[in-house]
Amino acid sequence: MEYNDHTAEEINTVMEEAWKAFHIYRKCSLKQRAGFMRAIAKEIENLGDELLKVAGEETHLPEARLRNERTRTIYQLTSYADACEKGDWLEIRIDTGVADRTPPKPDIRKMLVPLGPVVVFGAANFPFAYSTAGGDTACALAAGCPVIVKAHPAHAHTSELVANAILKAAANSNMPAGIFAHIHGASFEVGKTLVEHPHSKAVGFTGSFSGGKQLFDWANQRKVPIPVFAEMSSINPVFLLPEKMKESAREVAKIYAGSITLGVGQFCTNPGLIIGMDNDDLEQFIQTLSEEIKMTAPADMLNPGIFKNYVEKRANALSQEEVETVVVAEGEPQFNQATPTIASATAAAFINNPLLHQEVFGPYSIIIKCKDSTEMLEVAKHLEGQLTATFMATPGDIRANEELSEAVKNTCGRFILNSVPTGVEVCLAMQHGGPFPATTDSRFSSVGPDGIKRFARPVAFQNWDDELLPDELKTKNPLGIWRMVNGEMSR
Amino acid sequence: MEYNDHTAEEINTVMEEAWKAFHIYRKCSLKQRAGFMRAIAKEIENLGDELLKVAGEETHLPEARLRNERTRTIYQLTSYADACEKGDWLEIRIDTGVADRTPPKPDIRKMLVPLGPVVVFGAANFPFAYSTAGGDTACALAAGCPVIVKAHPAHAHTSELVANAILKAAANSNMPAGIFAHIHGASFEVGKTLVEHPHSKAVGFTGSFSGGKQLFDWANQRKVPIPVFAEMSSINPVFLLPEKMKESAREVAKIYAGSITLGVGQFCTNPGLIIGMDNDDLEQFIQTLSEEIKMTAPADMLNPGIFKNYVEKRANALSQEEVETVVVAEGEPQFNQATPTIASATAAAFINNPLLHQEVFGPYSIIIKCKDSTEMLEVAKHLEGQLTATFMATPGDIRANEELSEAVKNTCGRFILNSVPTGVEVCLAMQHGGPFPATTDSRFSSVGPDGIKRFARPVAFQNWDDELLPDELKTKNPLGIWRMVNGEMSR
Repeated sequence: MEYNDHTAEEINTVMEEAWKAFHIYRKCSLKQRAGFMRAIAKEIENLGDELLKVAGEETHLPEARLRNERTRTIYQLTSYADACEKGDWLEIRIDTGVADRTPPKPDIRKMLVPLGPVVVFGAANFPFAYSTAGGDTACALAAGCPVIVKAHPAHAHTSELVANAILKAAANSNMPAGIFAHIHGASFEVGKTLVEHPHSKAVGFTGSFSGGKQLFDWANQRKVPIPVFAEMSSINPVFLLPEKMKESAREVAKIYAGSITLGVGQFCTNPGLIIGMDNDDLEQFIQTLSEEIKMTAPADMLNPGIFKNYVEKRANALSQEEVETVVVAEGEPQFNQATPTIASATAAAFINNPLLHQEVFGPYSIIIKCKDSTEMLEVAKHLEGQLTATFMATPGDIRANEELSEAVKNTCGRFILNSVPTGVEVCLAMQHGGPFPATTDSRFSSVGPDGIKRFARPVAFQNWDDELLPDELKTKNPLGIWRMVNGEMSR
Repeated sequence: MEYNDHTAEEINTVMEEAWKAFHIYRKCSLKQRAGFMRAIAKEIENLGDELLKVAGEETHLPEARLRNERTRTIYQLTSYADACEKGDWLEIRIDTGVADRTPPKPDIRKMLVPLGPVVVFGAANFPFAYSTAGGDTACALAAGCPVIVKAHPAHAHTSELVANAILKAAANSNMPAGIFAHIHGASFEVGKTLVEHPHSKAVGFTGSFSGGKQLFDWANQRKVPIPVFAEMSSINPVFLLPEKMKESAREVAKIYAGSITLGVGQFCTNPGLIIGMDNDDLEQFIQTLSEEIKMTAPADMLNPGIFKNYVEKRANALSQEEVETVVVAEGEPQFNQATPTIASATAAAFINNPLLHQEVFGPYSIIIKCKDSTEMLEVAKHLEGQLTATFMATPGDIRANEELSEAVKNTCGRFILNSVPTGVEVCLAMQHGGPFPATTDSRFSSVGPDGIKRFARPVAFQNWDDELLPDELKTKNPLGIWRMVNGEMSR
């Protein structure tokens, strides 16, 4: 299915509508917003298998994976709706006045309010969960912001189906016109026009470093800069610590063979960097990993652009001096199929070659061999910002490597022990966002209800009469929200 | 007292020291950080009247004002120390694991961790409270970040005294070398070098729009961009609503005469824009305001640069077509003394002339006369981002102007009813930060303990054994911090 790019004029009309909708939608109660979000979830369910069929054709993702992703998307919408209504994200603080202080202490009550229309860019690798009705859209709607989605051109038809479901839910929920809009655009210009429009107040993006960085630059060069939440590149380092490896090098290898090739390696949390001590245990790990990877069949990537990128970046990495190819899957790949590959290099080579720090998006990982724990620490200190980092370690390993642990914590958003980075739980405690270049703003998460806070800012009301305040801030707390009142939590 | 600019080489040494200190300081307990902050407060007290004398000479601020500001600075340090120790700002969320779910639900625990060395630029108008040991420094230290202060050249000696107090407190509290550094620099280059240094991880600034915007641009153009919290320009609109004016035009005028001229108008929350209905009540307001302003003596500004700026910007505003000079204080000003001034213009003139939206830093305010409530709403819709906005209004006024109220809320960080914007209470519910150009990041506050969060980001620990977790996240909650555990607050 082919869609024409929206013109600048059409985009302007859409943004004007969104701006009008903002003034109505931001006054909708938390309950109304949550109702709308649940209606979207329902309409997506109502699309039935047709949605899976279209998405499968556009993304080459297997049905089971798409079914799971749809479930996740619906869970995001309904659980963020619950969180929206519960209102913890409003970060309410109330400091009541003291009339007989000199000077009198004013009554001040603070809560988050929505930023305004949010532009969301669909992600290539998550046609549901990080696209049209995905995490960014759900968070923005919960915060009280209209959403304008720029469909990912590689799954524009899927996006169109979901957009129609959202519009149907909006109509059935009596939402204002302009609360949601769907924009097509294969060209650069469409994204630029959206980000630069004066009514755009924030941007959500999941994709490549070059794409995210470009949006970030446009947003900061505006007359009025706006925040960009771009999730970009991460190689998700895994540190194999010696005692753990002595205990279970083979088991660790088997778990990681699965994680590296899961979903043809097309996850932002794919473990692309494995750091171990150059010893017999690591050799055992490599041997088992190689056996597993060798047997993993090449598989379809999302689209030819991503395939081409994988082929080139992998070839480039493998062609670097001091990089050794450890194993390549044996099956014969067809066009658009990625061949799982493991490489290795010394710590010194990794530290000195910036190219080896770059993400190779797909089923590829490089093993870094360290002479000793000092070298392992050096590798950690040279890492760029990451979404995740993982320790495969015993308690003894961790106690013996405190400095390493601190250095690694300092580079990542999520720090995993004895598990794999793939699989991002949707829950309040999740942090999906790390120091640059993993994301453009490490202070926020794009997964979990805390993601709502990306699209809101605090406003303090000073000396307002109780009956004139929003319900969220009234003394009697009619909405039953957890609030910090004079330094104590209550509801 | 004259100080030489620090060289790029000296700055590099300072930043390397700060980076080393970061690795030690971030592991200090909340109690240790709080202890250090209280020690700084003590050492500032110990500077005694010498500090007030030097600051008075450098800033021309009267002793009473400086005494108050010192009290406020000490209160910030000690109350943010209390908040640091209490730990609410860590935003702890714990979602415990569920082993028998398919797949098993991991245990995830999230808390804020410090960003790294923070560069703080001293403010001209607050030699204590927003300078060397001011709000930004206190927040950064609470968050676990070393601080590098760039002294404001206009009160470099004051800054030096306070810096020495901090260094003394650091030594007495066994803080790592490099936890605090003091940099002199009258040139552009010093600020640029500081912001661009790879070890700088965030910037705090209070000052002019051009200065703040420049730091913001440098920070975003780095290879690894960093957040800048710049508080820049705000004209703090005050809306005079009709019923309130009918009741008490004269009383309102008297209150505002005081607020406009408080501290020679040199507050970021100075009410520089007053919007009213063009009727007899407004004439009465203007008459009383004029009587009060006329009798207000011209007074010393902070420094000749700010004085020159006031003279020029005021002259420029008054020379605009359609701007009428309402009243100029009668006293004869000496060099460096600002003459309080009130101007007026029509709503149409204001809407069409961007120059009238610019801050005139000093005891100056412009009254905008609206024909009707539609025009008043139009003025509100044309406002840039503001630190504060104020309604002088009865409950009836507010109910009759709901759209105005929403539009105004959408432009500001703090919304005040029937009071003045000057005087920023230091408390948790305070929001001091508004949409651009008031600040570069409206999602954070630079006043109150929530300001600590500017210098931190979340990290989630997945599947860590309880005894390996930071105390803040251990199941038994040994530090007694309010935490969100499986969706419920507890401590």
